[in-house]
Formats: sequence, structure tokens, C-alpha cells
Amino acid sequence: MPFYNTGTMLAQALAYLEAHRERFLQELLEFLAIPSVSARPEHARDVHMAALWLTEHLRHIGLRSEVLRTDGHPVVYAEWRARDPHAPTVLIYGHYDVQPADPFELWDTPPFSPAVRDGYVYARGASDNKGQHFAHVKAVETLLHTQGTLPVNVKFLIEGEEEIGSPSLSRFVSAHVDLLRCDCVMISDSAMRALDQPSLVYGLRGLVHLEVTVRCLAHDVHSGHYGGLVQNPILALAQMLAQVKDEQGRVRIPGFYDDVRALDPEERAALMRAPYTEADLRRETGALAAFGEPEYSLAERRGARPTFEVNGIWGGYTGAGLKTIIPAEAHAKITCRLVPYQDPQRVAERVADYLRNIAPVGTEVEVRFGGGSPAVLIDRHTPVTRAAMRAAAATYGAEPIFELEGGSIPIVADLQRQLGVPIVLLGMGLPDDNVHAPNERFSIRAYERGIQASARFLLEMSACCAGGDRRNGG
Amino acid sequence: MPFYNTGTMLAQALAYLEAHRERFLQELLEFLAIPSVSARPEHARDVHMAALWLTEHLRHIGLRSEVLRTDGHPVVYAEWRARDPHAPTVLIYGHYDVQPADPFELWDTPPFSPAVRDGYVYARGASDNKGQHFAHVKAVETLLHTQGTLPVNVKFLIEGEEEIGSPSLSRFVSAHVDLLRCDCVMISDSAMRALDQPSLVYGLRGLVHLEVTVRCLAHDVHSGHYGGLVQNPILALAQMLAQVKDEQGRVRIPGFYDDVRALDPEERAALMRAPYTEADLRRETGALAAFGEPEYSLAERRGARPTFEVNGIWGGYTGAGLKTIIPAEAHAKITCRLVPYQDPQRVAERVADYLRNIAPVGTEVEVRFGGGSPAVLIDRHTPVTRAAMRAAAATYGAEPIFELEGGSIPIVADLQRQLGVPIVLLGMGLPDDNVHAPNERFSIRAYERGIQASARFLLEMSACCAGGDRRNGG
Repeated sequence: MPFYNTGTMLAQALAYLEAHRERFLQELLEFLAIPSVSARPEHARDVHMAALWLTEHLRHIGLRSEVLRTDGHPVVYAEWRARDPHAPTVLIYGHYDVQPADPFELWDTPPFSPAVRDGYVYARGASDNKGQHFAHVKAVETLLHTQGTLPVNVKFLIEGEEEIGSPSLSRFVSAHVDLLRCDCVMISDSAMRALDQPSLVYGLRGLVHLEVTVRCLAHDVHSGHYGGLVQNPILALAQMLAQVKDEQGRVRIPGFYDDVRALDPEERAALMRAPYTEADLRRETGALAAFGEPEYSLAERRGARPTFEVNGIWGGYTGAGLKTIIPAEAHAKITCRLVPYQDPQRVAERVADYLRNIAPVGTEVEVRFGGGSPAVLIDRHTPVTRAAMRAAAATYGAEPIFELEGGSIPIVADLQRQLGVPIVLLGMGLPDDNVHAPNERFSIRAYERGIQASARFLLEMSACCAGGDRRNGG
Repeated sequence: MPFYNTGTMLAQALAYLEAHRERFLQELLEFLAIPSVSARPEHARDVHMAALWLTEHLRHIGLRSEVLRTDGHPVVYAEWRARDPHAPTVLIYGHYDVQPADPFELWDTPPFSPAVRDGYVYARGASDNKGQHFAHVKAVETLLHTQGTLPVNVKFLIEGEEEIGSPSLSRFVSAHVDLLRCDCVMISDSAMRALDQPSLVYGLRGLVHLEVTVRCLAHDVHSGHYGGLVQNPILALAQMLAQVKDEQGRVRIPGFYDDVRALDPEERAALMRAPYTEADLRRETGALAAFGEPEYSLAERRGARPTFEVNGIWGGYTGAGLKTIIPAEAHAKITCRLVPYQDPQRVAERVADYLRNIAPVGTEVEVRFGGGSPAVLIDRHTPVTRAAMRAAAATYGAEPIFELEGGSIPIVADLQRQLGVPIVLLGMGLPDDNVHAPNERFSIRAYERGIQASARFLLEMSACCAGGDRRNGG
């Protein structure tokens, strides 16, 4: 039975939200202006600045908030304790770090000078993830300022290393299990299908990253004097990479698909209900054609199949004009997305062994393992999930669909294991937000709906789960 | 019959050279400190500065000298007219522009802060080509200041675009044929085998350069969302480059080896006389092994076989850490070295056609043709060559060997065609000068011997060729 009159509370919240729309937008713009690029050492101070800004903001709206050290970039932690001693606890996870913004020349407005155009906020991190976790912050403010309290306990765990694979957070969570104890984890770091079609993500791919270096010479040499006499590391690396996939995009590394689970018929059917089409793909990416394992649908390839992708390649002279050299070495950054039951370390070793085995003559190959995280599968049948479904349906006007997400949120598997509670992945972004790409954006309507969805979810949580043992779905 | 007492003149020249060694070195260091990188727009002013510096220097030692406009970087022209109306005219060609110096971190001392260590000058351009053409300048100064005149007419043509393929010089030469009229062209822009083993280059490879772009997407996309669904341009480019050579380094592009001349037995035997060994190659480059067409010797591969080399590759994220994208496009810079009778345009078209034909599905391939120049073959039996042989033998203490050079000097074919006179390629550098590489250097002994060789050559030219029709070897 509900503890609160959620109808009245909701009406008050929606009125507050409407009255403060402009300020909520301005605050997000201020947050987005901080270039908190975790991958880049030269942005370390900006990353720290973003943590301080967010902590101060959470304190300002009434939460107990602090910046907590990790082995890397710090964590922003905040909490609000409800008056009701039996109130359930919702832990909201997000990340205040962002992807690097280059290539800068492809942005229509600078990535850290947030711009409002045509109903969108354009800035690096707008959708991934500042805009999405900040919507939860604004929902908490809204409920707190209209009711003087919250219907549930709320904890925020906003990290600063998601975009570099969350290398420090797992240790941080082990060291702070008591602090983080909760009844469910809410994460908004994904996209819904459309603003009128919400989706709940029940699977995330894992990730391993590697860097391969092919070295042939002690130093760059003149391509006239030595051309035709020595191995060229760029050509050698190209030959290696060319042997990783077959013509249709299947990975040829031995054992690469071992441990990959087959989808059950119910899942295949559910994924088919709102199919992701080649037309969607072309519109979102500008791809000339879909490409990849032809025996799987696009949705299955995205959610249920592991990948091998090269994220970057470099070697030799890449400036203007001409430099007639054979370079000493060439490099590639590689990530593999993983599906449930694949072990990141084992996949990394198989990739590394394969690359070393096919190294052409005259090369020295070095493969560095950069870390990884396993895939995640989430139970679709918990009361917490049902609370999220009701909140989403009421906010967006349609029953949410269940989706397998192709991206990774490295810490989710760890949170699942270490906290042992249900996790909800309710994306607020849209498929064409250009996350990890130039001109990243976040729809202002999606932002405002996200605040509403978050407020409704907190109210639903108080209604559905108060007093019971939420961990076991009571 | 000699017109001058060359013995006396030589003795006076050698004494002057000995007395001014230190100044000659300091002047070279000053010239090397100007970062005249022709490939880089940000160095355009430095390139111009180098032209002005050299012009002023030539004027200072007594020549009529000026900076002449071209469509690109300017040409330095200077001349001295001998008193004897029948004196032959020697045109000395060189280039004051240099290769880009990156990767800067691999230099022991900064590339444009010339440093003297262990008998070498370390700086970008030390050997290629400032040190070598400046040795001719110092030889002219030496003869002029000891005799008050020169035994031959001398013209200097020092260009500023050699390292970007001399795009403007051919037109400049056509427009200035009268100004440049001469009896022979002397070029020192190569290496001798060793300081006690001079060599005369009788063949230069030609060059074509191309840039290939593979495009798959409208913009970079998230490698989680789209990994496994779209073509990756880096992998597509790798697959294309991997199909260019077979496992032993033979180029598989149809027609690539058409028009390549076979060496005659006399040439093969001459090249075998002082063989270039795999040990030489490993010492100079740090290569783990020689690599390339096994049916040809290293010297033949360098001088008589065309090549396909990738000078640079780039695409996606290449900074620190991780950026999980599939990039929109990937790029490679390609040069092919050419041998006599290959037409640059035709080879470029064959390469471009091949790359377009093997483009994987889901790609758009663009190949830009960056220009080219044909290979050069020089008659080894002219009186001018014999004059150079005598000068080299007397300077270095050994008969010069004839070599085929793997590098290119784009303008030589044009000079040959437009001026119609014998050309001498007498290298003053050494094989381990690290040209086009970090820590480029020029041996101070090689510099001083080079001045001496140049002075001896000018004296030999006056002795052998005065009064006759030098163009026909009279």
C-alpha cells in the first residue's frame, strides 16, 4: 500500500518542474561546460572540477554530499535519508566524465561551449552521461522542494572514470559496501527507441581493450633508400588486421565465439517485436549498408554477439603534404565487446595470441592488455523493474520494450555482484544523440521527460516496495 | 690543354680550406638552424627565410645572387662568370628545404638547434641537403678568394620544394632555360658508400604519391551501439593494403612491373663489385631481417625495382587512453618509387584502380593523386663523368663505384630533358646519416671532403672541357 499520496505529490512535482524549466536547463549547460575528459591527462584538473561542481550542487539542493577518493578520478557521493525508517533505498549511478571530443573540426559549435539549437543541447557529455544523471538530480530536487522530504532514501554514486573503463570503481565499491547498501540501482546511461517509445535495457555488452604495436626498424628510414628492402610495419599491421574478420564480418580468431550464449526463443521474439531496421541504422550513422554476421538480426548482433573493432590506427607521417619514410612502427587500438558468459581476460588472450601468431616476417609484435569488464544480464521480472515500467509508461505514453544494449557500463556487473540487488537501466537518451561522436546532443524534451520519469520512479518505488524485502522481490 | 695551373690553384685552395674550417662549420650551423620544412604551411616563413639567408650568403662571397619567384616556394639563383669567354658552365643544383622533423621526441638534440658531437653535425637537413650544396658554395668561395676568379662559369639553382616533389620547379626551368643554360649539372644529394669509397649515382628512382581515404559512415559512432552492425573503415583499409603485396613483398597490382627494364649483365656485374649486404642494412636501419623480392639482390631492389610503401596511416582515436568509436573514415599516404621507363601517371592510375576494385562492401574509396616524377638514367661515359671520377678519386683516395640510388630527386629528369646536358650525381653524404629520420647528421669530415671534391671538380672541368663543345662530350 502506498505510504504517500503519490497523486498529489506528482501534481506538485510537475508544477515545480514546469516553473523551473529554464533554470534546470541553464544548470545543465553550466555542468556541460566543464571539459571533464577522463582519458586525457591534460584534463585531469577539469575532471576534478566537474566532481567538485556536482558535489556542491547536490549539497545546494539539500543532500549530504562529498567527493570521495579512489585510485583514480574521484567519486561524487550524496545521500538523502527519508523520514520513514522502512523506506527503500535507491542508488542512482552515473558518470560525470566524458569522452574525448576530437575531431574538433567536425563540431558545429565547440564541444565545451554548450549551445541550444532546435530543441537540443549540443555539448560533449550532453547525453552521455551528464544530462541523464543530472535529470535524476533535478527529480530529487523537485520532490524534495515540493514535499520537504523524499518518499525513499536516495544515494548518488557518480563516478569519473566510466569512459576509460572504470578502472578504480570496483575497488571503491568493495571498500564502501556499507555506504552503498541499497534496494535497487537505477542507471540512466542509454537510449530509448524514441521519445514516445521507452525501453528498458536488460543486457549490456562487456568490453576488453588492447593496443597492438608492430615494430620493424630501429627508427624511421628513407623510403627511397630502403623501400623494397625492409618490412613496412604499417603494411604488416594491415595484413594482421585483415585476417581478423572474414568477408561478411565474422571474427576468425579461434575460440572467439566460445561461451557465447544462444538467445532463447522468447527473447528472439521479444527483440523482433519492435525491430531495429537497416533504415534506422543508415539514418543514425550514414552507413552505406549494414555489415556483419548475416545470420543474426541487427538487434541480435548489437546485443547478443561479441565484436572486434579497431577504434584507432596510426603510424608514420600523418601531417600535411609528404614525408617519404618507412616508419619504425605502427599502432592500433582495439576493443572487443563481450556478451554474457565471456571472460574478458580469456578473450583478450585469444586475440593477443592470434595477432602474435599471424605476425608477418620481420616484425616484433607487442600487445598490451588495457583492462576489461564482463557483460551483464538483468532479470526482467523483479518488482523494481515493474516500478520502472509503470514510471516509464506514464511518462512517455507507451509500454517500454526490453532491449539488449550494445554498449558497456563497466561497473554494472560489479554492482550486481557486490551489492546483490536488482538493477534498472532506464535510458533517457535518443538513438541519434551522437554519443562518442562530434555534435553530441541531448533533446531538451528528453531531459525534461527524464526528470519526470525519475520522479515517477521514486514515487513508484515508495508505493511498491516500502516495508518489504525488495531484494527478493517482496 | 689546361688553361690554368690547376696544381698551384689546388694547393692554394686547400690551404684556404684548412684556414677557414671552423668558420665554414659555423656558417653551416647557422643555415641549419632555419626550420625550412616545405611540407608544413606553418613553416612557410622559415622556408622563405632560408632562401633569403642563402641568397645573402652567396652575394657575400662574391656572386650575383637573387631570390626568384615560382608558383610555390622560391628558388635561390646565383652565378659567377669566368674571365675566359670559352670557359664551360657548371650548374649546381641543391635544395634548401628539409623534411619535417617529427617525431621530435626521438631526437637526442632538437632538430633545428644544430649540435656538434663526435665529429658530426646533428640537425634536420644536415646531410639532406643543406650540408651538401653548402659544400659547393664553400668550394666556390675558396677558389674565388684564392684566385680572384673561377676557372669555370658557375650557376647555383637551389630550390625550396624538393621534399614535396618539386611541384613548381619544372615550370620554373621551362621559363628560365636561357638563364640556366650550362654544360653540365652537378648535384650532390645522395650518399657515398663510405668516406674512403666514393660513388657516382647513375640512376635515380622516380616517385608517385597518392592518398587513399576509406569512408564508411557520416560521422564517428559509438563502437558499442554499432559494433558488429557497420563496416569499420580502418579494417576495410587494412584489408585493402593487405592485398597489395604477397608474403615475400612482391607487388600484386596488375601491370605494376610492366615497363620495368631488366638490368644488363654488365650493370649486374658492376653492382656486384661492392655488394650491399644484409648486415649493412641491419646496421643502418635496425631491421630484424631484409624483406622484399627474393629474386633480386639488395642493390637491385634499391635501384632497379619499383616499390609500394605506406608512409603514414591514420584513423579514429589515436590519443592516450580509450575512445570507443568506430571512426567515419581512415587514411593512408602511399608512395611508389619508380624505375626507368615507368610512367608516373600510369602507375598511379594502376594503383588507384586496384585499390578501388578491391574496396570491401560498405565503403567509399577516394584516391587522390599527389604528383610524381619519372626515374632517371645517366650516361656513365661522358667527359663530365670522367672529370667527376678524377675529382672524387683524388679527394677520397679510391676510384668511385657506380651505383643505382633508391631515392628520387624529382627535378633531375626535367633538367636532363630541358637543358640537354650531362648530369653528375656525386654524393657527399654517408649511408648512416639518418636522412628523413630522427637524428639526421652530416659528418664534418664528409663536409670538408665535399668542399675539396667540389673544388677539384671545378678545376677538372676547366681542364678537360674548356673550349670544346662539352654537350657532345668534345
